[in-house]
Amino acid sequence: MTQKLLNPHADVVTLTSQLVDIPSVSGNEAQIADLVEAALRACDWLTVERLNNNVVARTNLGRSSRVIIAGHLDTVPVAENDKAVLIKAGQQLPVEGSTLTEDVLFGLGSCDMKGGVAVALRAAVTLEAPVFDVTYIFYECEEVDSARNGLTKIAAQKPEWLAADIAILLEPSNAKIEAGCQGTLRAQIRTSGVRAHSARAWMGKNAIHGLADALTLLSQYESLCVDVDGLEYREGLNAVGIKGGIAGNVIPDEALLEVNYRYAPTKSAAQAEEFVKQYFSDYEVTILDNAAGALPGLDRPELQSLLAKVDGQVAPKFGWTDVARFSAMGVPAVNMGPGNPSVAHARHEHVPLAQLVSCEELVIGWLRG
Amino acid sequence: MTQKLLNPHADVVTLTSQLVDIPSVSGNEAQIADLVEAALRACDWLTVERLNNNVVARTNLGRSSRVIIAGHLDTVPVAENDKAVLIKAGQQLPVEGSTLTEDVLFGLGSCDMKGGVAVALRAAVTLEAPVFDVTYIFYECEEVDSARNGLTKIAAQKPEWLAADIAILLEPSNAKIEAGCQGTLRAQIRTSGVRAHSARAWMGKNAIHGLADALTLLSQYESLCVDVDGLEYREGLNAVGIKGGIAGNVIPDEALLEVNYRYAPTKSAAQAEEFVKQYFSDYEVTILDNAAGALPGLDRPELQSLLAKVDGQVAPKFGWTDVARFSAMGVPAVNMGPGNPSVAHARHEHVPLAQLVSCEELVIGWLRG
Repeated sequence: MTQKLLNPHADVVTLTSQLVDIPSVSGNEAQIADLVEAALRACDWLTVERLNNNVVARTNLGRSSRVIIAGHLDTVPVAENDKAVLIKAGQQLPVEGSTLTEDVLFGLGSCDMKGGVAVALRAAVTLEAPVFDVTYIFYECEEVDSARNGLTKIAAQKPEWLAADIAILLEPSNAKIEAGCQGTLRAQIRTSGVRAHSARAWMGKNAIHGLADALTLLSQYESLCVDVDGLEYREGLNAVGIKGGIAGNVIPDEALLEVNYRYAPTKSAAQAEEFVKQYFSDYEVTILDNAAGALPGLDRPELQSLLAKVDGQVAPKFGWTDVARFSAMGVPAVNMGPGNPSVAHARHEHVPLAQLVSCEELVIGWLRG
Repeated sequence: MTQKLLNPHADVVTLTSQLVDIPSVSGNEAQIADLVEAALRACDWLTVERLNNNVVARTNLGRSSRVIIAGHLDTVPVAENDKAVLIKAGQQLPVEGSTLTEDVLFGLGSCDMKGGVAVALRAAVTLEAPVFDVTYIFYECEEVDSARNGLTKIAAQKPEWLAADIAILLEPSNAKIEAGCQGTLRAQIRTSGVRAHSARAWMGKNAIHGLADALTLLSQYESLCVDVDGLEYREGLNAVGIKGGIAGNVIPDEALLEVNYRYAPTKSAAQAEEFVKQYFSDYEVTILDNAAGALPGLDRPELQSLLAKVDGQVAPKFGWTDVARFSAMGVPAVNMGPGNPSVAHARHEHVPLAQLVSCEELVIGWLRG
């Protein structure tokens, strides 16, 4: 393995570039975790702990509040984008060559979320005496299933490391605050019928035809918009899969429709399940999975000074993120990190340099007080 | 290869049993065709021709009418049922052991359609001077795709062998006359949309929801019943397949519905296509395949004497069979053969002995005049 460089005292763009150049596809975070751990251990104001490839560093200044600054170390698989490249405005990206209107850093994880990791590392190695006690968490396996997620493992084995008043997750959000997140439920709607030869269809009962009303209900669904702390969460109920059919001459006796319900963080998982079962009350409904959202927590005093720095600009988060995982552990969390979430996981993933700089200034400025 | 016995002068039950014991899964009809050809060549009133494993035997008596008596030699694949067994009423079948209420012959092809082949062979070797000239056709590969079908090959290479006024196809129909057959058309209905993350569904357009109206139209479809020569053909329009979906968190941008239209023999293939395109006029419709039906042809004088023997009892045929292939070649055809079509292709395939006997009597009696 090549010796990789990681200099947390370099500027945030250089540091992001170095992080991108360290391969860390989910399950292979040992090298990047070693380098991050070494950088943190060099700071004598931090207590550093490690569990698998999760690194947790804490100040212990006796402040009245503690905040978590968190980011995951892993990336999705490589797609010809494993080397960081600086691209100037007016130039083209190396893949899917659209021309850019601003300077960016291209490369796997630049957006999701090594830019955010760089901001967290810069804060950790810079701030000897932040106004809050801070717990910096760098964790593994966010891009894969929940059981492997580093936060799940810490919560199970070292829950005391996660004690805090609020958490900031540095997932890409264009360096803006996105608060809370919506819940997500997937359900299967099943119809049954009676198989028959299609030349004598009246001998059978067509299970696909039986989904007509369910699709009509879906197409007539009107989003509920829920206001929480001044943020508007827009719910959604959508088909995400449909299948049925045996052969071109057979009346099918089963059809399956899969729906995804995205629900406001004011609803519990049980309420969401009840809604879906009621909405499709004429059908056999099976809940496939269900994760509640997270309330924005904007009433927390620790967040007030951060909100002041962005002139109160906050948007609701629609997608489900680890913000909800913190929330479920009793720690209100918001999302704020460099990068446009719409290029996360894309081959042409990149992060604007200006967002790296502004996000670093915002986080460090806030923690410095 | 074991030497197989085929004695066309045995009774029709024994002959069917011998035919079942000769393996002839589609594509492997050489042995059975050889034995059938030899039996026919022993009759000096027949002119015998062969093309691949298709055997055609004709009388040349100078009659004013010629009728075709046809049956296929092949079977579907073996399913522990390749040995003929006589089962008495009150006994159980060797597989799927239901108890029988009549004496049957069990075995692969007993129903579809070696019973019919036995009846045709019995007629050919018995009737030196039938009232019509007769063309006996024993053909290969009916159970597989159309291009391999023996009738397709004869029509392409020796169309003169198929010249006739009417045809009787001895496919299983409980030894009753089933006239004509319905046409069948398969079409694909496609919807398109705009892909988006399901957390922000309003950024996309759900292609599955777009099928709601199509399924409603299908569930509201009312069968047209068409009367032809006193026979009622009941049409059908059914979904036979549906699919769509990318992932549990993605608004799908494509959904596909496959429908099967079974239409009365009074409609042409073009009219059927027009109907389906009109019915789903708001959708993108692609015709996948389309085969017109066959008119019953009950007005043909050659059929009148056959109808008299069954007291005018005729049922409409709903499924598509080679009757339509004859019809397309200009030869009106009806279906009449021993065996219940609902056990064709089943592991417990069997044919009632009484039907073998009654069908033989009917065919030979009719041709003898």
